[in-house]
Amino acid sequence: MFGAAMAPSPENNKIDEQKKDYFSMDLSRLLTSAGINIGICALFLSLYSVFRKQPGNVYVYFGRRLSQEDGERRNINALERLVPSASWIVKAWQITEDELLSFAGVDAVVFLRVLVFSIRIFSIAMVVCIFGVLPVNYFGEVKKHMAIPPEALFVFTIANVKDKSQWLWVHCVALYIITLSACILLYFEYKSISGMRLAHITQSPPNPSHFSVLVRSIPRSSDESLDDAIKNFFTNYHGLSYLSHRTIHRTGKVHKFMSTAEKVYKKFVRLKVAQFDHKCRPNIYRCGLCGGTSNSFQLYHNDFELDAKKKGHDHSETTDEKKECSAAFVFFKTRYAAVVASQVLQSSNPMLWVTDQAPEPHDVYWPNLWIPYRQLWIRRITILVASIFLMIMLVPPITFLQGLTQLEELKEKLPFVKIIIKRNILMRLVSGYLPSVLLQLLIYTVPPVMMLFSAVEGPISRSGRKKSACCKVLYFTIWTVFFVNVISGTVLNKLDAISTPKDIPSLLAKAVPEQSTFFMTHVLTSGWASLSSEIMQTFALIYNFVGKRMFGLQDDPDSVPSFPYHTEVPRLLAFGLLGFTCSILAPLILPFLLVYFFLGYVVYRNQIMNVYCSKYESGGQMWPIVHNTAIFSLVLTQIIALGVFGMKRYPVASGFTIPLVIATILFNEYCRQRFYPMFNNISAQDLIQMDRDDEQSDRMEEIHQLLLTAYCQSAPPASSQDTCDDDGSSINEANRTDFSQEIIDSITPHQTWDCRT
Amino acid sequence: MFGAAMAPSPENNKIDEQKKDYFSMDLSRLLTSAGINIGICALFLSLYSVFRKQPGNVYVYFGRRLSQEDGERRNINALERLVPSASWIVKAWQITEDELLSFAGVDAVVFLRVLVFSIRIFSIAMVVCIFGVLPVNYFGEVKKHMAIPPEALFVFTIANVKDKSQWLWVHCVALYIITLSACILLYFEYKSISGMRLAHITQSPPNPSHFSVLVRSIPRSSDESLDDAIKNFFTNYHGLSYLSHRTIHRTGKVHKFMSTAEKVYKKFVRLKVAQFDHKCRPNIYRCGLCGGTSNSFQLYHNDFELDAKKKGHDHSETTDEKKECSAAFVFFKTRYAAVVASQVLQSSNPMLWVTDQAPEPHDVYWPNLWIPYRQLWIRRITILVASIFLMIMLVPPITFLQGLTQLEELKEKLPFVKIIIKRNILMRLVSGYLPSVLLQLLIYTVPPVMMLFSAVEGPISRSGRKKSACCKVLYFTIWTVFFVNVISGTVLNKLDAISTPKDIPSLLAKAVPEQSTFFMTHVLTSGWASLSSEIMQTFALIYNFVGKRMFGLQDDPDSVPSFPYHTEVPRLLAFGLLGFTCSILAPLILPFLLVYFFLGYVVYRNQIMNVYCSKYESGGQMWPIVHNTAIFSLVLTQIIALGVFGMKRYPVASGFTIPLVIATILFNEYCRQRFYPMFNNISAQDLIQMDRDDEQSDRMEEIHQLLLTAYCQSAPPASSQDTCDDDGSSINEANRTDFSQEIIDSITPHQTWDCRT
Repeated sequence: MFGAAMAPSPENNKIDEQKKDYFSMDLSRLLTSAGINIGICALFLSLYSVFRKQPGNVYVYFGRRLSQEDGERRNINALERLVPSASWIVKAWQITEDELLSFAGVDAVVFLRVLVFSIRIFSIAMVVCIFGVLPVNYFGEVKKHMAIPPEALFVFTIANVKDKSQWLWVHCVALYIITLSACILLYFEYKSISGMRLAHITQSPPNPSHFSVLVRSIPRSSDESLDDAIKNFFTNYHGLSYLSHRTIHRTGKVHKFMSTAEKVYKKFVRLKVAQFDHKCRPNIYRCGLCGGTSNSFQLYHNDFELDAKKKGHDHSETTDEKKECSAAFVFFKTRYAAVVASQVLQSSNPMLWVTDQAPEPHDVYWPNLWIPYRQLWIRRITILVASIFLMIMLVPPITFLQGLTQLEELKEKLPFVKIIIKRNILMRLVSGYLPSVLLQLLIYTVPPVMMLFSAVEGPISRSGRKKSACCKVLYFTIWTVFFVNVISGTVLNKLDAISTPKDIPSLLAKAVPEQSTFFMTHVLTSGWASLSSEIMQTFALIYNFVGKRMFGLQDDPDSVPSFPYHTEVPRLLAFGLLGFTCSILAPLILPFLLVYFFLGYVVYRNQIMNVYCSKYESGGQMWPIVHNTAIFSLVLTQIIALGVFGMKRYPVASGFTIPLVIATILFNEYCRQRFYPMFNNISAQDLIQMDRDDEQSDRMEEIHQLLLTAYCQSAPPASSQDTCDDDGSSINEANRTDFSQEIIDSITPHQTWDCRT
Repeated sequence: MFGAAMAPSPENNKIDEQKKDYFSMDLSRLLTSAGINIGICALFLSLYSVFRKQPGNVYVYFGRRLSQEDGERRNINALERLVPSASWIVKAWQITEDELLSFAGVDAVVFLRVLVFSIRIFSIAMVVCIFGVLPVNYFGEVKKHMAIPPEALFVFTIANVKDKSQWLWVHCVALYIITLSACILLYFEYKSISGMRLAHITQSPPNPSHFSVLVRSIPRSSDESLDDAIKNFFTNYHGLSYLSHRTIHRTGKVHKFMSTAEKVYKKFVRLKVAQFDHKCRPNIYRCGLCGGTSNSFQLYHNDFELDAKKKGHDHSETTDEKKECSAAFVFFKTRYAAVVASQVLQSSNPMLWVTDQAPEPHDVYWPNLWIPYRQLWIRRITILVASIFLMIMLVPPITFLQGLTQLEELKEKLPFVKIIIKRNILMRLVSGYLPSVLLQLLIYTVPPVMMLFSAVEGPISRSGRKKSACCKVLYFTIWTVFFVNVISGTVLNKLDAISTPKDIPSLLAKAVPEQSTFFMTHVLTSGWASLSSEIMQTFALIYNFVGKRMFGLQDDPDSVPSFPYHTEVPRLLAFGLLGFTCSILAPLILPFLLVYFFLGYVVYRNQIMNVYCSKYESGGQMWPIVHNTAIFSLVLTQIIALGVFGMKRYPVASGFTIPLVIATILFNEYCRQRFYPMFNNISAQDLIQMDRDDEQSDRMEEIHQLLLTAYCQSAPPASSQDTCDDDGSSINEANRTDFSQEIIDSITPHQTWDCRT
C-alpha cells in the first residue's frame, strides 16, 4: 500500500477519484463518528467519577494531594462509590486562578491560559464562520441541495464556492476578524503572563537560584586544586559579592551500584509490606516514622561506607568514586551580583569560565553538569540532525496510515476486509477512525524519544530539557499532523511540484479543504479520546491494578508524575493550528474543536489540582512558544487563504490579504521586542529592589546560610528515585536533593525556602 | 534583448548553441584580454608614480600624511617629477604591520590580512590545481589537441573530463587539500586577529567609550526633567559606579541653517584664496594661525547667538532649537561597571532604559541618536525588505548585460555592431570586456545606496553603519556576480528547474565551468581595473584638477577620505568566492586571481599609508564577516563538486565529499563558539585588570575629568563638515567633536586621549 502511495503518475487519476470519494464523505458519517465519540467520552468520564472514589486508586488520582496536602479524606460508603457523579467537574470549575497559582505554579496557570485563549479565539471564529462563511460555502454552487444529513461534507467547505464569486469577500472579512481578535487576545495574554512571571519572581520567597551561578569549563591547573582555582578567580574578580561555591562531583561506579541496590531493596520491601495502611504517610520508609523496618538497608549502607573509611581508602575512593567536574555552583551575596556574573563574559577565552544563571535546586539536571562544555555544541548539532532524520523517517509509516483511508485500495490488498466492510456501520468506523487511531499510536512513541534527545543535548535544568522536548514534539506534531497529512494524503504524486515555493499556497489551498474531513475525525478521535485517556490515567490505572492484584505491590507514594507539558502543549497547539487553518475553509471543524477545548479546560484543571505535582518551575517559559506557534498558524492560514483567493480568481481578496500577512508579522516582531526579553532575563531594577527588601528586613544573613546547603548533589543515601519528573526515560536517576525534605517542608510551609515557588 | 533572455523554451537550442560558442572562446582571446589589461595596469601604475610627485595632487595622494604627520617633504626637481618610478612599491612593501597598526588601526591591518589569507590559500590552490587538476582536465577526453594558444578554454575545465573517469579522484584530493589548508589558515587568522583585538583593547590608552553607556528610550514624566530622571535612576540602581551623564539634543532648524550657511561661506573663502601655500597647515581657517580672514564668519555667528541671548530668547530658543532626545550618554567610574550596565536588562519593560555600550566619540553617529528606540525594529524590517527588493530589481539589467555576451544576438538587435565586429580584435574586446565593464559600473552605484539604507536602519555608530553596509554590499555582490551570472548567463530558460533545491548542485556544476570564462575576464577587468582606479584615485584626481583649473578652488584639507571598507571588503570576498568555486573546476582562473591579490596587497598598503585616514575603529569587527564568507565559499565549492561528481557518475568522490561538507560546517561552528564572543564583548577579567591598572597608576581621576567632555555633540560653531568619513551620503553633516582638536592632539601625541586608537 505504501508502495502504491509512493507510485508515480500513472495511477494518478484512480487515486484522485478515490480521494474525491473520501472527500465527499457525507455529514451522516461524520455525525456517526461524533456520536460514537461523545458516547465513549461520556462513558470514560462516568467511569472516572466512579474510579476516583475507590480507595485502591487513590495514588493514581490524587497523587499531588497526597504528597502536598494533608488528606482529610472523608469515608465514602460502598453504594456512593459506584454511582457516577459530576461533582469533580464542579470542583475543577470552581477553583480560582490564584489558588492554582499558589500550589501548581506559573507553568500550570500558563498552560490553562493556552486553553482559555483557544476557547476565546475559536468562539469568535465559530460565530463568524458558522454565521458568515458557512452559508456562503453551502449556497456557493447554484445547485439543488439534498436534505442536510446525507449531504456531502464537500458542500460545507470553500471548495463549493464558485470561481470569481463575489461572495469571497465574506471569507476575507472573516479572516480579518479572526486575525485581529487573535492578535488582540495574544497581546493581552502576553502582557498578563509576563506580569504574572514578574510577580512570581519578585513576590515569591527568596529563591536560591537567583543567588547562584553555574560555572562550567573551569581551567584545570596542576598547581592548584579546583576549589582554590574557583575561589581565587571569584575573589579576585568578584571579591565584593562572592560568597561561596560548591563543586560538582561525578558519582562513580560503587556509588551507582549502591543506589541501584537500594532501589531493588525498596521494591522488595514494597512487595513484603502487603497491607496498606490508610493513615500511614507516604514517607513510610524514609523518615522512619512508621517503624524502623526499612532503615535496615540504610544501616548496611552506612556500615559499608564506614568500613571503607576505616580501611583508609577514604581519600583514594573520594578521588576515584567522586570525580570532580570542572563545574561548580558559585553563590553570591546579592541577586544582582549573580545576574551580572552570569551575563558578563568572564574570560577572554569564551570557552573558559562559562557562566549561566543556575536553575532552581530541584530543577538541576545533575547528570548533564558532568558534560564538558566543549562537547555541548557538537551534541546540539547531532541532536538537531537526529531529530530531522527522525521526522523524515516517520513520513513513510504516516503515509501508509493515510493510505488506509482509501478504502478501495484497502479492499484490493486485504480481501477479507471486503466482507467486513459490507456492513455499513463498520465501513464508517474504519474509514473515519482507523487511520487516526493508528496515527495517534505512532505519535505516542515520539515524546519519549524527543525527551531522550533533549537530555542528550545537555541542558542543565529539567525545565530546560522539557522545554526543548516540547519544541521538538511541537515541530514533529505540526509536521506530521498537518503537513505530511496534507501532502501525502492528497497530492503525494505531485510531490515534485511541492518543491517550487510559489506553488505551495495554491497546493495547500487545494489540499486543506480536501483534508478537512480527516482533520475533523482527528479532532474527534485523537483530541477527545486523548482527554478521556488523560482523565482516566489509563496506564497508571492498569499498572496500579496489575501491580497490586498480580504482584502484591504496595502503592508507591513517590511516583507522583509531573505535568507532561512536552506532550500536552504541542497537542493543544496542533489543534489550534488545525482550527485556524480550517476556520474559513471548512468551518464545520470549529464546534468539535470548541468542545475539545472546553472539555480540556475542565479535565486539565482537575488533573493539575489532583494528579500532577509541580516540582520545578520555569516561570511561564512556555508562553513564547505558544505565542510564536499561534502567529505561525495565523500566517499559514493567511497564506492558504491567499492560495484559495488566487485559485478562485478573486484578486481583490488576495490584495487585502497581503497587508494582513505583513501586519501579523510586524505584530509578532513588536511582541518579541516588547515582551520576550522578560522571559530570558530579570531586570536590574527588580533584582536590586528585591536585594534591598531582604537587606532591610535583615533576612540576608539567613538567606546566605541557607544558600550553602541549597544545592546538595549527593542526596542522603536513602533518597528515593525521584519519579516525580518521570518522563519515560531512565536517565534521571541521578542523586538529587532529597524529595522527602520537600514534603517535610510542605507540611511546615514557608519555614525556610519554598522550593516549589 | 532582455525579453529574449527572459523568453521561454522555444529558443532554447539556439541560445544553448550561442553559449557553447561563447564557452569555447579560445585561449588566445583570453590572453589578448590579459595582455591588454596588463598593459593598462602598467600604464596606470606608471602614471600614478608620476602624478604623485606633482605638488598639485598632494591632497589627492597624501591626504592622511598631511592630516596626521608633519610633512617633511623634500623638493623634487622638475625632471624627476616626470619619470615613472617604482619606489612607492618598495615603500609599501617595506612598512611593517606594527607601524601600520600604530597609525591605521586594527581595521586596516585586518583588511590587509584578508589579502594575505587570500594570497596564501590561492597559492596553495594554484600549486595543487595547476599541477594536479589541470593536466587531468586537459587530457580528459582522449582526442587530438590543437596547439595550446588557439585551444578552446573548454578543454581546461572539468567539463572536458570523461564521465566515470577514474581520474576524478584527483579533483577530490585537490578539494580536500584546499579545504584543509583554508580551515587551518582561517583558524590561525581568527586566533591572531582576536589576539590583536584584545591587545588593541587592553593596551591602547584609556578609551572614553569603555566608560560610557548609551541609554535610550528614557521614560519622560511631567514632574521631573530628563536630567533628573537619568540622575535618579542611575544613582538609585548604580549608585556606586555612576559618575555623570550627558543628554543628547536635537539640533533645530536655525542651527541647521547656520551650519549650512557656514559651509557655503567656506566654499566661498576657498574660491577667493587662490594661492596655495605649501607650508600652511590644514587648519588654516579653523585655528586662525594663518590670519583672521576666515574668522569673520565666526564672529557674525557669535554675534547672532549673542543677540539672541540678549533678547532673552535664550531659554525659549534652547527648548525650541535644541530639543532633548530621550537618550543620553551615561558615564561610569570603571569600565566594568559600564559594561555591566550595558549588558544587564535595566527595566522590567524591555523597551525602556535601553542600554548599549557607547561607541567611541568620533564614531558616534549623532543623527541616529535622535531616532526613538521604538522605531528601530520597524526601520530594520523596512530596510531588509528594501534591500531584498533592490537585489531583485537589479536582476533584469544584469541579465541584459549578460545577454550582451551573446554576440549573435547583439548583432541581430543592433545592425551597426556587425560592421565593427568584423574586425577580429574588436570582437574579442567586446565579447571579453563590455559586459564586465558595464556590470562593474552598475555595481558602483550600489554601495552608496546601501550606505544610505544602513544609515536609515538606525545604527548608533559610524563603524556600525559601515559594517551593516558592508554586509549588504557583500550579499549583493555575491548575488549578482556569482548567482545571477551563473543562473541568468547559462540557464535562465531553466529558471523553473532551479526552484527544486536538490537540482541546485548539478545545475551549478553545469553552469560554473561554463561561466568560468566570464569569471576570468571579470577578474581581469573588474579586479585589475578597480585596483588601477583605486591607486589613481580617479574621481578625486579629476575633481581636484577640474576644481583647481576651472573654478580656482583651493585644496580642501578636510576632505581626507576614510577607507571604504564597505566596497573593498565585499569585492575581495567576491573574488575569493570565484577563486574557491572555480579552483577545481576551471583552475586557469587562479593565476589571474593571484596577480590581483598580490597587486591589491601593494596598492592597499600604499593607500592606507598615504591616502586614507582612520578616524574611528571597530577593532576588527570585519573579520567574522570575512570568516563566514570564506566558509560559505568553501561549502558552496563542495556542493558544486558534489554536483560535478554526481554528473560525471563517480559516486566514490561524492561519498568522500559529503563528510568534508559536514566537517567544514562543524569547523565553522567551533570557531563561532571559540572566537566570536570576543568580537561582541570584552571579558570581565580584562576590564577589571584595566581598571586596576589605571587605579594603581592614579590615572582614574584624570580619566573621569576627561570623560565629561569626551562626548560633545554641539561642536564649536567653526567646526568643519567632517568629510573624513565621507561615503557619498550627505547624512553625516551633524555637528561632531571638533576635528581640529584631533589634529592638535596628533601633534602632541598621547597627551590626553588618543582618540584614534
